[in-house]
Amino acid sequence: MSGVDGTLYTEVRTFYARQMRLLDALDVDGYVLTFTEDGVTDHVHRSERIEGRAALRAAAQAALSHYENAAMRHWNDHYLIESLAKNRYAVSYCSLVSRTAEDGTVAFEPTFRIDDVLVRVDGELRTASRTIERDRPSSARLVDAS
Amino acid sequence: MSGVDGTLYTEVRTFYARQMRLLDALDVDGYVLTFTEDGVTDHVHRSERIEGRAALRAAAQAALSHYENAAMRHWNDHYLIESLAKNRYAVSYCSLVSRTAEDGTVAFEPTFRIDDVLVRVDGELRTASRTIERDRPSSARLVDAS
Amino acid sequence: MSGVDGTLYTEVRTFYARQMRLLDALDVDGYVLTFTEDGVTDHVHRSERIEGRAALRAAAQAALSHYENAAMRHWNDHYLIESLAKNRYAVSYCSLVSRTAEDGTVAFEPTFRIDDVLVRVDGELRTASRTIERDRPSSARLVDAS
Repeated sequence: MSGVDGTLYTEVRTFYARQMRLLDALDVDGYVLTFTEDGVTDHVHRSERIEGRAALRAAAQAALSHYENAAMRHWNDHYLIESLAKNRYAVSYCSLVSRTAEDGTVAFEPTFRIDDVLVRVDGELRTASRTIERDRPSSARLVDAS
Repeated sequence: MSGVDGTLYTEVRTFYARQMRLLDALDVDGYVLTFTEDGVTDHVHRSERIEGRAALRAAAQAALSHYENAAMRHWNDHYLIESLAKNRYAVSYCSLVSRTAEDGTVAFEPTFRIDDVLVRVDGELRTASRTIERDRPSSARLVDAS
Repeated sequence: MSGVDGTLYTEVRTFYARQMRLLDALDVDGYVLTFTEDGVTDHVHRSERIEGRAALRAAAQAALSHYENAAMRHWNDHYLIESLAKNRYAVSYCSLVSRTAEDGTVAFEPTFRIDDVLVRVDGELRTASRTIERDRPSSARLVDAS
């Protein structure tokens, strides 16, 4: 359990419930504020590393048009929480992302694994770093490694 | 955290695990009993408001034929729990709904956001009100507002 | 609540987060070790009962080729936890299973309901038995029963 009790589990799940709703509502300013000022987002599968809130805001704004024609939802599971230090946690989870069109049809993005570091600042959790890796078939991973 | 601890989080998640299983099993009587006697369900996207257990039972019975040819499952995420008063809670979550046909193919309903008020009656949580809103693309919401 | 508090809920969710990641990573040896030595897996819908770690490892190895061309993910919900005895729990949940292909397209397996018995051995949860039942439409279940 690595010292994870029901209170911390609830706090972490509640943090992601809020953050994912802001992301799916395309509330760029609200989403960016759930990161620390120097928060880093790393999209491993496209070698894109974004450092700091201003860069994250710009990247999110630029991506908005891709998302405006469907209602996005992130469905997360398999949260693993590890205490790294006082007020500092490694949190890892998996994400299924749906896109509901205006006519109600639902499509899915490729699934992902996310590894975050959260810190508690003034009593509130924030994302200090996020590493996003697209799920790939094991056969494709073996080809890469050969 | 709004005073939400691990015990309340577990109680709420357990309540929905039971209620969603009754719903997906098309157990109308069991599902209706998870509401208060005067419980209200409001489908905002189709302007349908159902008041009280008897009306809810009738509406659910009428909808059964739509669901009998597929195994329904609700997949919920992003629970936010807020204490409103003693034994009274606002609980909000998002829902992905799958339909598995007899041949195993899986289809999806449009995704939803649900805002409930739960009350604890004789030690058991019950739904006092439910507001269901279909997810719509932000572009469509902008058109509506213009 | 059947004596389920936030700590047990967190422990159970963390156990499944680890076990499902091992399963989805096709880490057969790691997955098998999350079962007890005499752990039983029962696929009700195909009348297949597998007893003990060695048999489970052999069955999982034989099934690997079916899964190598897509990244599998299990998305679980509706956990119900019941204390059966000291260090022995009935845990039931539902499972949506996605397959992400190398080109990013996502397909789904039929949904399932799983009934496990977990035991705590040397402080760690393990699966003592698993019963897996494929979701079927209620109309199909009625035909079976007639």
